Amino acid sequence: MTPVPTLEWTGGCLRLLDQRLLPFREVFIECRRVDTLAEAIRSLAVRGAPAIGLAAGYGAVLAAMEAPAGPGFLDGCLRGLDLLASTRPTAVNLFFCLDVQRRVLMNSKDRDGAVAALLESALRLHREDLEACAAMGAHGAALVPPNAGILTHCNAGGLATGGLGTALAVVYEAHDRGLVREVFADETRPLLQGARLTAWEMVRAGIPVTVIPDSAAAHLLASGRVDIVVTGADRIARNGDTANKVGTFPLALAARRAGVPFYVAAPRSTLDPATEKGSGIVIENRDPDEVAGFGSARVLAPGAEAWNPAFDVTPVDLIDGFICEAGVFRTPGDIPGAPVDSGP
Amino acid sequence: MTPVPTLEWTGGCLRLLDQRLLPFREVFIECRRVDTLAEAIRSLAVRGAPAIGLAAGYGAVLAAMEAPAGPGFLDGCLRGLDLLASTRPTAVNLFFCLDVQRRVLMNSKDRDGAVAALLESALRLHREDLEACAAMGAHGAALVPPNAGILTHCNAGGLATGGLGTALAVVYEAHDRGLVREVFADETRPLLQGARLTAWEMVRAGIPVTVIPDSAAAHLLASGRVDIVVTGADRIARNGDTANKVGTFPLALAARRAGVPFYVAAPRSTLDPATEKGSGIVIENRDPDEVAGFGSARVLAPGAEAWNPAFDVTPVDLIDGFICEAGVFRTPGDIPGAPVDSGP
Repeated sequence: MTPVPTLEWTGGCLRLLDQRLLPFREVFIECRRVDTLAEAIRSLAVRGAPAIGLAAGYGAVLAAMEAPAGPGFLDGCLRGLDLLASTRPTAVNLFFCLDVQRRVLMNSKDRDGAVAALLESALRLHREDLEACAAMGAHGAALVPPNAGILTHCNAGGLATGGLGTALAVVYEAHDRGLVREVFADETRPLLQGARLTAWEMVRAGIPVTVIPDSAAAHLLASGRVDIVVTGADRIARNGDTANKVGTFPLALAARRAGVPFYVAAPRSTLDPATEKGSGIVIENRDPDEVAGFGSARVLAPGAEAWNPAFDVTPVDLIDGFICEAGVFRTPGDIPGAPVDSGP
Repeated sequence: MTPVPTLEWTGGCLRLLDQRLLPFREVFIECRRVDTLAEAIRSLAVRGAPAIGLAAGYGAVLAAMEAPAGPGFLDGCLRGLDLLASTRPTAVNLFFCLDVQRRVLMNSKDRDGAVAALLESALRLHREDLEACAAMGAHGAALVPPNAGILTHCNAGGLATGGLGTALAVVYEAHDRGLVREVFADETRPLLQGARLTAWEMVRAGIPVTVIPDSAAAHLLASGRVDIVVTGADRIARNGDTANKVGTFPLALAARRAGVPFYVAAPRSTLDPATEKGSGIVIENRDPDEVAGFGSARVLAPGAEAWNPAFDVTPVDLIDGFICEAGVFRTPGDIPGAPVDSGP
C-alpha cells in the first residue's frame, strides 16, 4: 500500500492533504503559521485523533519558528501551543503530543535549539505513529477470520494517522493476508467521513467497499454479513470507556446484539489515564449547521434546531478488546507501557 | 392543529402533497391515472405506511375509472390493483387497503357501481385512519410524563397518514395537554424524512424540535434528555417483531440501554397476521444512489458501492408497548379486533 499523503513536513512547513475536499479533489494546504494550522485542525482539513496529534507536534515547530528570539521566546511558543490545544477538545492524542513538545521546549536552550529539537521530536512522534499503525495492523489481522466481512465507522485510516490507520490498518493487513471478502463503511453523518474518506481509501487500495447509512448497521449486523467490527478511538478512559465518532456507541450495541465481536484499535497515546471513566470525557459539540445540510444541499425545515455532538462514549462492557501497538487487550489496564496518570 | 393536506380526493382525482419537495416547497400532484399514482408512491411523493395504504385505496377508484366497461372491466381493474401492489413491498397497509378494495370490486355489478362503491370504501378507510390517529394520540399521550423530551424516527406524522399521524399523533396530543418540553427528531438518512418532514410538521404546530443525526440518538438517550421514544411501523408480525424505517432497531437498542421506554404507534391495519415473525418480513432495498448523495450533492467516493435497505426489524423484546386505536398493548396478540390470518 502506498502511504496516504495525510501530513508531511517539507520545505520548512507542514503540508496537509485537505480532507474537506475528498473524495473528489486532492488538494494540499501548506501551513507555515500556527494559526493556519489551528484553523486547519478546527475545520477538519486534517482530522483523526492520531493525525491531529502529529499535526500539533509539527505545529509546535511552527510556534518556535514564529516566536520572537530573546526573552519573549518561551511565552510566544506557549501561546502557540495553547492555540493548538484549543482547537478540538475530545481527542487526547492532541494533548499527548503537545505535552511531549512542551517538555522538549522546556529543555531547549534557545530558539534555534528549540526548533531543531521540536522538529526532531515531531518527526519521532510521526515515525512512532507509523510503526504503531503497522503493529496494530498485524495484531488486529490475527483476529480476522477468512472471507471476512468487516464493518467500520468514520475514518480510522491512513487519513487519520501518520501511517496506515488504526482500524483500517487492521483491514489493510487482513486484506494483504487474503482474509477480507468485503468492507462495510458507515457513511458517518454529518460529515460523511465514511462515504468520503474510508471509501476513498478502500477504493485506492483495491478493497471492495460498501457504504451504508449509519442507521443501517444494526440491520446489516443482524443479516450475518459482518464477522468483525473495528473502529478507532479519540480518547479511552482508564476503565476502558471509549470516546469515538458519534455513532460508535449504537454500533457497539448492535454488534453485541448480533453476537459480532467489536474491537477498538488505537495507539497507546489515545489512553487517558487522567480520566477515570467515560462520563469524564468532554464531548465536542460542533456547529449545528453541519446537520442542517448535506454537502451543498440544505435539508433542515426552517425554524427547527439541530444538535451536533461529534463523539459519543461506548461503555467498556460493549468492547471485546483493544488493539494497540503492544497487542490485543481486554481492558486498558492490561496494556503494558500505557501512559500513567501523572496527577494534576 | 390544522390537518396536514397529505392526500385528498377532489375533482375526480387524488391530490397529493409532493413530499419530495418539502420542507422548502409545498407543491401538489393531481393523480388521475393509476400509473401516475404508482410512480408517486414508488418515488415517495406520498409515503408513510397508512398514507400509502389510503392512496392505494383511492388508486382502486382510478383503476375502475380507467378500466374499459364491459367484459374486460374486472381484469382491467385488477391490473391496476396489481400495479399499485408492486410499488413498495414492506408496508402492509398497502396490501390491507388493496384487499379491502378487491373485495368491494368483486361485489360490484358494473363499472359505475364499482367506481361509486370503491370511492365510498376509500373515503371510509381514510375516515377510519383519521379516527385511528386521534385515538392513538389519546392513548399514547397518557404514557407521556410532564415536561417530556420525546424522541422519534423518520416521519410518522400527518404526512404519513390520513390524520395527524401515528407517533406524531401522540406528540400532538401530549403537546395539547401541555406535557411536551421538546421533540427530538432523528434526521433519518438517506432521505431525511426527520429533518425535512417531521421537523416541518413540528415547526408548523409550534412544538420545539431539534433534529439530530441518527447516529447521535444513543448519545442523546444516554444523556437523560429523552423520557419516551415513539415511532411508527410499516408491518408488525404476529409475534410483535416490527418493521419500520431503517434505524428503528438501533434506536430501540439504545433506548433499552438507557432505560427509556420505547413504543410503537400504529393502527391495527399495520398488523400482519400472516407473518409469524420478523424474519418473514420482506425488506425493500432502494436505489443505492439515495445513499451516494442527497439532492444534487454527491459524496460517495467513486468506485465504492452503497447499500440502501429502507427498513429494519425491531425484535419485539425491545418494544415496551404497541399504541393502537384500541389502546396500548404489550403484544399484538393482546389487541382486540386485530386482523386474523385468513390462511393462504
